[in-house]
Amino acid sequence: VKKTKVVVVGGGFAGLAATMKLAKDERVEVTLVDKNNYHTFQPLLYQVATTGLEPGEVCPTLRAIFREKDNVNVLMGEMEGLEAENSSVVVDGEKLEYDYLMLAIGGRTTYFGNESWRAAVPGLKGLQDALEIRTRFLNALEQAETETDEKRKRELLTVAIVGGGPTGVELAGALAELKNHVLQEQYSGFCLEDIRIVLIEALPRLLPPMPEGLGNYTKETLEEMGVEVILEEPVSELEERRLVTEEREIRAETIVWAAGIEGRPLVQKFCQYTTKKGTVEVLSDLRMPPHPNVFCAGDMVHLKDEDGDPLPGLAPVAQQQGSCVADNILALIEGENTKSFHYFDKGSMAVIGRSRAVANVFSKISLKGPLAWLAWLFVHLLSLLGFRNRAVVLVRWFWSYMGWRHSARVLNPAYLPE
Amino acid sequence: VKKTKVVVVGGGFAGLAATMKLAKDERVEVTLVDKNNYHTFQPLLYQVATTGLEPGEVCPTLRAIFREKDNVNVLMGEMEGLEAENSSVVVDGEKLEYDYLMLAIGGRTTYFGNESWRAAVPGLKGLQDALEIRTRFLNALEQAETETDEKRKRELLTVAIVGGGPTGVELAGALAELKNHVLQEQYSGFCLEDIRIVLIEALPRLLPPMPEGLGNYTKETLEEMGVEVILEEPVSELEERRLVTEEREIRAETIVWAAGIEGRPLVQKFCQYTTKKGTVEVLSDLRMPPHPNVFCAGDMVHLKDEDGDPLPGLAPVAQQQGSCVADNILALIEGENTKSFHYFDKGSMAVIGRSRAVANVFSKISLKGPLAWLAWLFVHLLSLLGFRNRAVVLVRWFWSYMGWRHSARVLNPAYLPE
Repeated sequence: VKKTKVVVVGGGFAGLAATMKLAKDERVEVTLVDKNNYHTFQPLLYQVATTGLEPGEVCPTLRAIFREKDNVNVLMGEMEGLEAENSSVVVDGEKLEYDYLMLAIGGRTTYFGNESWRAAVPGLKGLQDALEIRTRFLNALEQAETETDEKRKRELLTVAIVGGGPTGVELAGALAELKNHVLQEQYSGFCLEDIRIVLIEALPRLLPPMPEGLGNYTKETLEEMGVEVILEEPVSELEERRLVTEEREIRAETIVWAAGIEGRPLVQKFCQYTTKKGTVEVLSDLRMPPHPNVFCAGDMVHLKDEDGDPLPGLAPVAQQQGSCVADNILALIEGENTKSFHYFDKGSMAVIGRSRAVANVFSKISLKGPLAWLAWLFVHLLSLLGFRNRAVVLVRWFWSYMGWRHSARVLNPAYLPE
Repeated sequence: VKKTKVVVVGGGFAGLAATMKLAKDERVEVTLVDKNNYHTFQPLLYQVATTGLEPGEVCPTLRAIFREKDNVNVLMGEMEGLEAENSSVVVDGEKLEYDYLMLAIGGRTTYFGNESWRAAVPGLKGLQDALEIRTRFLNALEQAETETDEKRKRELLTVAIVGGGPTGVELAGALAELKNHVLQEQYSGFCLEDIRIVLIEALPRLLPPMPEGLGNYTKETLEEMGVEVILEEPVSELEERRLVTEEREIRAETIVWAAGIEGRPLVQKFCQYTTKKGTVEVLSDLRMPPHPNVFCAGDMVHLKDEDGDPLPGLAPVAQQQGSCVADNILALIEGENTKSFHYFDKGSMAVIGRSRAVANVFSKISLKGPLAWLAWLFVHLLSLLGFRNRAVVLVRWFWSYMGWRHSARVLNPAYLPE
C-alpha cells in the first residue's frame, strides 16, 4: 500500500505535536524538516542564558526524539521554496514531494519595524540567542574585574531587559538570583550589589495578559530581589550598549530584547494571505488558502480566540494547533471533514525566582508564590522531552536549589561580542 | 602583615594543584591567571567530542572552584610578558607584581613541525577542539543523509584518528559506541555499518607506554567494536579531509590528530633554556633558571624520571608538580631549602568502551576489562571537581549505561566547518 506523504516543516512545538500524532498512523509517512538538528524547548532558554542549563538539556535532537518511529524521517535543511502546484517543497535545492504539507516555521523576535535594532540587540527566541546573552554577561563581569574607568564599569555591570512578558520576567528574575546567590565571593574587582538589572516595559504593568494582581505581585517580588522595574516607558532608541526612553538613557553592556514576536520573512515568500505582523491568515481548520492540502500552525499563524483577541505565542497554542493539523490530515485521508481549531486555555505561568512564580489556571484561578512555583516545576519537567534530559535537568535544579551552584558557566569565545 | 604575593599562570592541573595548596596558607595571596574562565578536565574531553557530556560538566569555572578561598584571586587574561628583573608579569597590558611566580601554561598538540597540518586538522587538547570535532562529526552524518555521490558519502562517513595513545584509543572507542549503540534507528540515508572509524599509530602497538599485553588487548577490543586499527604507519601527508601513509590514502570528513604534545610558542618567549620540543629545562626543584623565584610545572616542563625517560604529559604528573611547587614556595617563605621533584607513578589507564578498559597500576599490575573500567570510573569521578558536576556527570553516565542515550548532540553552527 502506498503511504500518504506528509511533510512537516519546523521542529518546534507545533511541528513536534503534529509529527508525534501522525507517527501513530501506519498509513502515513512523515518527513520532518528543520534547519537545526534539534528541537528548542523555548520555555527554559532563559536558564541557558543564565548559566543554569546546557544546550543539550533544552535542545534534544529531532532524530533522538523520533528514534522509535519507523514512519518518521528527519531531514536537516532549510526550506527554500514552495511549489504548491506540484505539491512539493524545495529543501536545500532538492525537491521534496508531499500529499499534505504542514508549515510550522515559527516566529522571530519583533523589533516593531526597527530593523537596525535587530542587529544591535539579541532577542531570546533561539539557542544561539541564549548562548550569546550568557557569554556577553559573563564576559562583562570578567571585564569589570579590571576596569578602572568608573563609567565603563557601570556600563559593564548593567543588564537591561526590554519587555515585561514571561520571557523578560523570567530572565530578570534568574539574573537577580545569579547576582544575589550564585556569584557570591567570586569577584574582587567590584561588589555584586553594583550589578544593575533593569526591566523595562512599555505598558503600565508586567505580564499584561495575566490578571492585574499577578502582575503587581511579580513587580513587587522582582523589586525585592533587586530588579529595577520601569513601567510605561516605550523604548525610542536602541543601539548596542545604549537604550533610550522618554524619561532616561541606559547604558548597558548586556541588553536583551524580549518584546514579542512577529512572522518570519519566509512567510511572505510562501504564503499568499499575510497580516501586517508577518503572520499567515489561515482558515479555521488551519488550512492555508488557496491550497487545500497545506496547513499552518504555531507562531507563524494569525488566529483569534472566541473574544476576538489574537491567540498568544505560547507553546500550548502551538502544540494544540499541531495536534489539530494532524487530526485534520488524518480526517482528509479518511475522506471525512476537517474540524475547526479551538484553543483550550489551560492558563499561563511565569517563574520569578526560587519558590516564587505566578500562574493563571484556566484563566480563572490566580496562583502565586510557592504553589505556583511547584506547578511550574511540575509542568516544565513533565513537558521536557526525554527521560535523560529530565533526569539531568532535575539533578541540576536540585543542586541549584540546595546550594545555588550553577555549572554552565563556560565563557565561550565563539559567542563573544566583537 | 604583608602577604607574600604568588602569581600562578595557567588553571590546568598543575596550576590548580598549586593554588589549592597555597590557598591553605594565610600568609600567601595567590592570583591565578588564565586566558579562559574555566579549568579543562582534559581526561573527559573525548566525551564532549562524542556527545556524552556538555562543556560545563568538564570545564568548571575557576571562580567557582576557588569561591571559598579568600586569599585567591582569579584573573581572566592572557600573559603577554615576563619582566623577571621587576618581578612582574604583563597580563592584557597590565603589570602584575609577584614575590613568587609559577608558570603552568601547558602544552599544545604537536604536529612534529608540520605547521600546515595544525590549521587543517584539530587535536583534542582543549574544549574548543572537542566542540569542533563533535560538530564536524554530527554535521557529516547529516550531510551523508542526502548525499548521492558515493565517493563523497564514504568520505563523510569516515573518521580517522591519528595517534594510538590514551586520547586516540578513548576517542575511537567512544565513536565506535556511538555507531554501535547510540545512533541506532535514527538515520535513513545510510547504514550505520558504513561509518568507518580508523585509528592510525606510527609505532608497532597501541598505548606504547603500557605493557604490551594491554596494548594487544586494546587493539583486539577496538577491532571487535568495529574500529580499523592500523599500526606501524606514520602519516606522511595531512590536509583537511585527506591523510596519507606509506601504505594508503584515507579520505575522511573528520580527522583528529591525537599524536602527542609540545611546548607552546609562549615558552620560547618567556623561558631561557628550552628543548627542541619547546618545553622548559628546569632545576630539579622545578625552578626555572636563571630566576630564583620563578617555578614551572606541567606539560610545559621537560623533566626525566629516574630511568632517564621524559615524564609523560599526564594529569598526575602536572598535579604532583604543582603541589611540589607550592611546597617549595612555602619552604622559601619559611627560609628553608626547596626539595627536588619526584614523580610517584600510580600508573595509567585508558577506557576503551563500556566495561572495557586497561589500567597499569603502579606500573606493575596490569588490569583489563570490567575491573579496570570500574577503576577508571572511580578515579575519574573522584577527580572531577565539584559535587554538582559530579552528580550531573553520574546521571548522564547512568542513563548512558542503561539505555545508550547521549543528549549532548546539538549541532552548533558556531563550530561548523567552512
